[in-house]
Amino acid sequence: MTDHELPGEVVEAEGHLIDSDLLTLIFDTVIKSGGRFDVQQFDIGRTNEDFSYLRMRVSAPTDAALGTLIEDLVPLGCHPVVEQDALLRPADRDRCAPEDFYSTTNHRTLVRHGGRWIEVARQRMDAVIVIEDGRASCRKLRDIRTGDRIVCGVTGVRIVPEFRERDRHGFAFMTNDISSERRVEVSVARIAERMAELKRTGGRIAFVAGPVVVHTGGVEYFSQLIRRGYVNVLLAGNALAVHDVENALLGTSLGVDLKSGVPVEEGHKHHMRAINTISRAGGLRAAVEQGVLRSGIMYECVTHGVDFVLAGSIRDDGPLPDTVMDLVEAQDRYTTALEGVQMVLILSTMLHGIGVGNMLPAWVRVVCVDINPAVVTKLADRGSSQTVGLVTDVGLFLHQLAQQLP
Amino acid sequence: MTDHELPGEVVEAEGHLIDSDLLTLIFDTVIKSGGRFDVQQFDIGRTNEDFSYLRMRVSAPTDAALGTLIEDLVPLGCHPVVEQDALLRPADRDRCAPEDFYSTTNHRTLVRHGGRWIEVARQRMDAVIVIEDGRASCRKLRDIRTGDRIVCGVTGVRIVPEFRERDRHGFAFMTNDISSERRVEVSVARIAERMAELKRTGGRIAFVAGPVVVHTGGVEYFSQLIRRGYVNVLLAGNALAVHDVENALLGTSLGVDLKSGVPVEEGHKHHMRAINTISRAGGLRAAVEQGVLRSGIMYECVTHGVDFVLAGSIRDDGPLPDTVMDLVEAQDRYTTALEGVQMVLILSTMLHGIGVGNMLPAWVRVVCVDINPAVVTKLADRGSSQTVGLVTDVGLFLHQLAQQLP
Amino acid sequence: MTDHELPGEVVEAEGHLIDSDLLTLIFDTVIKSGGRFDVQQFDIGRTNEDFSYLRMRVSAPTDAALGTLIEDLVPLGCHPVVEQDALLRPADRDRCAPEDFYSTTNHRTLVRHGGRWIEVARQRMDAVIVIEDGRASCRKLRDIRTGDRIVCGVTGVRIVPEFRERDRHGFAFMTNDISSERRVEVSVARIAERMAELKRTGGRIAFVAGPVVVHTGGVEYFSQLIRRGYVNVLLAGNALAVHDVENALLGTSLGVDLKSGVPVEEGHKHHMRAINTISRAGGLRAAVEQGVLRSGIMYECVTHGVDFVLAGSIRDDGPLPDTVMDLVEAQDRYTTALEGVQMVLILSTMLHGIGVGNMLPAWVRVVCVDINPAVVTKLADRGSSQTVGLVTDVGLFLHQLAQQLP
Amino acid sequence: MTDHELPGEVVEAEGHLIDSDLLTLIFDTVIKSGGRFDVQQFDIGRTNEDFSYLRMRVSAPTDAALGTLIEDLVPLGCHPVVEQDALLRPADRDRCAPEDFYSTTNHRTLVRHGGRWIEVARQRMDAVIVIEDGRASCRKLRDIRTGDRIVCGVTGVRIVPEFRERDRHGFAFMTNDISSERRVEVSVARIAERMAELKRTGGRIAFVAGPVVVHTGGVEYFSQLIRRGYVNVLLAGNALAVHDVENALLGTSLGVDLKSGVPVEEGHKHHMRAINTISRAGGLRAAVEQGVLRSGIMYECVTHGVDFVLAGSIRDDGPLPDTVMDLVEAQDRYTTALEGVQMVLILSTMLHGIGVGNMLPAWVRVVCVDINPAVVTKLADRGSSQTVGLVTDVGLFLHQLAQQLP
Repeated sequence: MTDHELPGEVVEAEGHLIDSDLLTLIFDTVIKSGGRFDVQQFDIGRTNEDFSYLRMRVSAPTDAALGTLIEDLVPLGCHPVVEQDALLRPADRDRCAPEDFYSTTNHRTLVRHGGRWIEVARQRMDAVIVIEDGRASCRKLRDIRTGDRIVCGVTGVRIVPEFRERDRHGFAFMTNDISSERRVEVSVARIAERMAELKRTGGRIAFVAGPVVVHTGGVEYFSQLIRRGYVNVLLAGNALAVHDVENALLGTSLGVDLKSGVPVEEGHKHHMRAINTISRAGGLRAAVEQGVLRSGIMYECVTHGVDFVLAGSIRDDGPLPDTVMDLVEAQDRYTTALEGVQMVLILSTMLHGIGVGNMLPAWVRVVCVDINPAVVTKLADRGSSQTVGLVTDVGLFLHQLAQQLP
Repeated sequence: MTDHELPGEVVEAEGHLIDSDLLTLIFDTVIKSGGRFDVQQFDIGRTNEDFSYLRMRVSAPTDAALGTLIEDLVPLGCHPVVEQDALLRPADRDRCAPEDFYSTTNHRTLVRHGGRWIEVARQRMDAVIVIEDGRASCRKLRDIRTGDRIVCGVTGVRIVPEFRERDRHGFAFMTNDISSERRVEVSVARIAERMAELKRTGGRIAFVAGPVVVHTGGVEYFSQLIRRGYVNVLLAGNALAVHDVENALLGTSLGVDLKSGVPVEEGHKHHMRAINTISRAGGLRAAVEQGVLRSGIMYECVTHGVDFVLAGSIRDDGPLPDTVMDLVEAQDRYTTALEGVQMVLILSTMLHGIGVGNMLPAWVRVVCVDINPAVVTKLADRGSSQTVGLVTDVGLFLHQLAQQLP
Repeated sequence: MTDHELPGEVVEAEGHLIDSDLLTLIFDTVIKSGGRFDVQQFDIGRTNEDFSYLRMRVSAPTDAALGTLIEDLVPLGCHPVVEQDALLRPADRDRCAPEDFYSTTNHRTLVRHGGRWIEVARQRMDAVIVIEDGRASCRKLRDIRTGDRIVCGVTGVRIVPEFRERDRHGFAFMTNDISSERRVEVSVARIAERMAELKRTGGRIAFVAGPVVVHTGGVEYFSQLIRRGYVNVLLAGNALAVHDVENALLGTSLGVDLKSGVPVEEGHKHHMRAINTISRAGGLRAAVEQGVLRSGIMYECVTHGVDFVLAGSIRDDGPLPDTVMDLVEAQDRYTTALEGVQMVLILSTMLHGIGVGNMLPAWVRVVCVDINPAVVTKLADRGSSQTVGLVTDVGLFLHQLAQQLP
Repeated sequence: MTDHELPGEVVEAEGHLIDSDLLTLIFDTVIKSGGRFDVQQFDIGRTNEDFSYLRMRVSAPTDAALGTLIEDLVPLGCHPVVEQDALLRPADRDRCAPEDFYSTTNHRTLVRHGGRWIEVARQRMDAVIVIEDGRASCRKLRDIRTGDRIVCGVTGVRIVPEFRERDRHGFAFMTNDISSERRVEVSVARIAERMAELKRTGGRIAFVAGPVVVHTGGVEYFSQLIRRGYVNVLLAGNALAVHDVENALLGTSLGVDLKSGVPVEEGHKHHMRAINTISRAGGLRAAVEQGVLRSGIMYECVTHGVDFVLAGSIRDDGPLPDTVMDLVEAQDRYTTALEGVQMVLILSTMLHGIGVGNMLPAWVRVVCVDINPAVVTKLADRGSSQTVGLVTDVGLFLHQLAQQLP
């Protein structure tokens, strides 16, 4: 039996196939699956701006293997030359998808429905696609309701992978590796340029921040960023707010005096006093209004109308009245706050950073700053090439950033 | 003015003051506060078993400073020679303590009430003490209800610090430092001995585990531990259960085939399929009963009646129906599950490890295993000397532990 | 001016251009240099075994820029279609190369001389190529002598990049990322298979080991490897030998008792006693012959004829008489010992690991084991895809390896 | 048999026994050895300035055990009440000490000879003490010559441990723990104060620096420090100088452009060109004199008469003509350069940092800066409390330091 007698299908792909490594990934995928490919046409982009075009026949030993192979090629931007509508099946019970549901990536996705390709809204990873009133959108498993019409299989699904934007925004230089042996000042300059451009053009910037921002002395610099309009959204946990308030009220962070660097005797109680004070006031906003809380990150957020969400966790003390302890609600509020955001800076928080990373489409630029290279690697590995990582001291990073922003 | 004209008070302390470093801490505390001490009596323990006894007059420039100093000395086991009842104030609103509330440590605490010293129940860090019906117990800030009688200040509060149990349980050898440059097999042998002893005597052992247990191939060894009765409680997040189920159903963990070590194409969807399958079954227990889930950690927990709690987090996919997404409830269920536990092993999870550490009294022995020394240091720093840390590979640790347990 | 009027040259390349990412790198290089490319022919390999072939005309704004561009393309396997002999210039003084000397990579290299392509001997990174008696070989800068004929520029130089050997030796699965969240047992199995195969076929295996091998309890397992014939060469520093001898003579490693895990009082003197004992005997070999040293890694090396070299460093105590403190000599002896070696395992030593990495041609397979992911990343980044990294506990790794080897 | 019938000896100690933890260590040592102690007198220091005084009889089951116990107590500052001269034995061959030689700590040491206590010169760890012409000094094992009179056992040896200088120099605040979750700016301020004070008083400051100083953009700031007179000694390896020269000549560090942060094509050859250029000039000093090298750390060192030593290592490329490849000579030159130094800053180099740490007496203050907490912990663990560690970005640290120095 020759290749052409095996079950096969003709697929095509176009884009920056070479410099985004897509071509490599496409061929690898075929080979690993035990299949074969026969390149029918390959037009190479002559310059960096040109797209390349690939058309090939892929084949596999069985129909089932071919189906799986096609399924694996779709996220790489391949699609069958012969177009068909996506297969829809109704959910037979709440929170459950049909067995063969299509699980989304974070890349821009199109679904063919009624002969037309429609773009999927609320793009994110690890969701299903629901078609409703001729519109397609991502939905989390837990939000599926009986009767929802869910895309199954990969027929009629087309992915538009983000191509590496090597020359745009001057960001790509940072994507190559994650190392503490780099000059951070250069990277900060690029980030500052990008933030300034977004501010100028009305783009939205979100920060995701852990309590280390407070411990490392970043409060004053981060407050400046808020006052100067560079922070549209703040997503954090209970601890950031608690230690920020502790610092504002008592001058310590986890009991360490931030002026002298010396642990204060019994200072570990300070954060409990901070929580009690905010609870008594009735929350952060009330505490600001009552003049109880008069400085710090949370004060600036309240005063400057920054959209903030504090998500709870198993390790929380208190929590503050503002902390959302129902995590389904917290995830939903994070997702809502992230709508329309064009840049996200994750500062020293693996937990909330991964949480946010899961919610973002691939075209939002993410900067992850942490002194631990393993955290940066882990966050960068999850997305596509959208994340640039900086291994550095977060307090000093914020100091530099405040200095370099116009 | 001589020292003796300054405001002062006579305090005493007894115990292993020297080899627990308490004496150093006591003197340091006085000096740092700007106060003075005048040792009136000091009887040194002649051997390791003997207690030492210290009585000294401490003085400070002002009455207020003296009050603060005494407050700082109480957690070190000092108490005024002249005994008084604790000061109780009623809470004036829900979730709020009086301003000067006493914030607990995780050490055994006594409160003097009605002329008697009573032991505080449910001892934990960062709580208040409530007196009710002649009994004292710890309560979280958020659980305070209007009218609760809350201990304020430190009068009538006595702490019994855990002394370093250098010779007991053969554990102390591990407390000295946290380093990856140690022979892990020796430490595993000690841990195994202690676990075997607890099992023999009916003691309860809790495990707190992250998904790395699955990724590093620990499922089979951990399953053995459950089957052999060494796991009484399992506290984890959604991810451990998701990847354990993914492994049981599809042979992968986060899409990596655990037999070959090779990432499976499109394997990142596997965990979504796992969640969907368990949701359809109606939860983990139901999945076991229906024969859908037939191996792995969660299967063994269900089958062997291990008390497990899965706490949600902002980064959760799904979640599984069993995951508690209301974090107030999750914290309460963790706390309940930990009652009476005598040993806790924390495997590769900083988040849940810190959460559990906050809930434990100081006399529960904690073993923290992580390949990242910063995690081990952070967990060990939070408690007293109760935590021993091992910097090693968690999968290989579980392999060794399963081999060395009787 | 059109592209074709710019200075240009036609180059060609063949090999696994796509799945080794070479095609991407080639195009990237042209674009980044500000040049242009015009693909004249591109034949894509139809399967994983087939080579691809590329011929293109590259152009640049100036002749100088074109020269630099060609220079940058050569290490990627490109070579001008029109062949010329390499340019040779004599060294005008010892230890100095002509300004435009060709600096080697670790890839297989051919030089065109007298109209013939000859392969370069002693291939390694960061060397010059000297032609002598019609033969070409790598030479370190410091070994250049006045009059040596040195290859300059890139004309007449051709590189044969190692292609990713995805399917050979089952090693490639480990090249994807460096993470502690992997199942080490699977990787150990692959390494064991490869070692067994090399032993069977007479291949040579070198180990590069730091003192952590001793601290983590690896001596017994490593000794087994030596006794069973899996170690042909051992490259290390003074410290490995010192602590191995300390362990053999006194049962401790840096003063820590390896049976109990407890630091011995005054144990930090033990390594000084060990050094003194070996000095008195006249060296390691003499100590073995005199019956002074009767177990451990160095004992087994002496007894089983393993070729070992101990290189000195600025941090060495002693050193042992066997330690080579002249680093020029030490590097030369390392290089000689590595000749013909086909596999290198680097265990917990960044210093000696980087030293050895610099000496190896790209086709020697390297396995790097360290509990610190930053070390593994750093070692892996230096070579091509030749290094596979394992982030794990070295003592437990050796235990596993000894168990899994046939 | 009662305790007093066991072999015993009366020892005494005085100093800040409590707040330096010495008392704890003394008692621990006796207990762990299986011995007993009987405190005859203990006078506690009433304030932080007062010394405490301890006299106790220690006993052990056998004379040999008692000898070992006394030996273990000497480094903690204990000494027998009954004074005897030190025991001297001649070395019977070069490089070898008598079996029972006294191995030094880095603490100030006195030896009793001819009825007088004489202070040991050139104090350092892991040496022997030689008495010559009535003077005592430390000598490395390898420098022993036949006939040298070497102190053996601990009789007649007295150690003066450094006491924690809690209030002096404001340094102690940093000794508590090693964490990346600290405000670095505060620590930099203290270090700057101390450096300014030393400069004012003619104290000498040494820097030990790795190439990461160059990679992270620290050259300009470090150059400022040299120009402003804050660097008296620079100890480094070949790589610091190579990349500094590469940066000065070609604007890159390991091939990465330090202005743009982008790797330069074929930039990995740059360091070879740098080495070749300096070799041709005949060394760094000659290159400065010839106007070949006109900026950077090494240029400033030459121009401002900073005493620098470059020590070779197994991983060195080149090396530069200035690099000392004979490590015995390199160690000797490091030691000589460190004479009279009062403060040492170790920047991102574990290898040279440990090397220098081994050479320093305990009273020289050491600051260790590294982004990897494991390196800081390892360096801090080796000495006494003399090392303070900062976990931060080295480039940003130097920027801050240059800003904060007067």
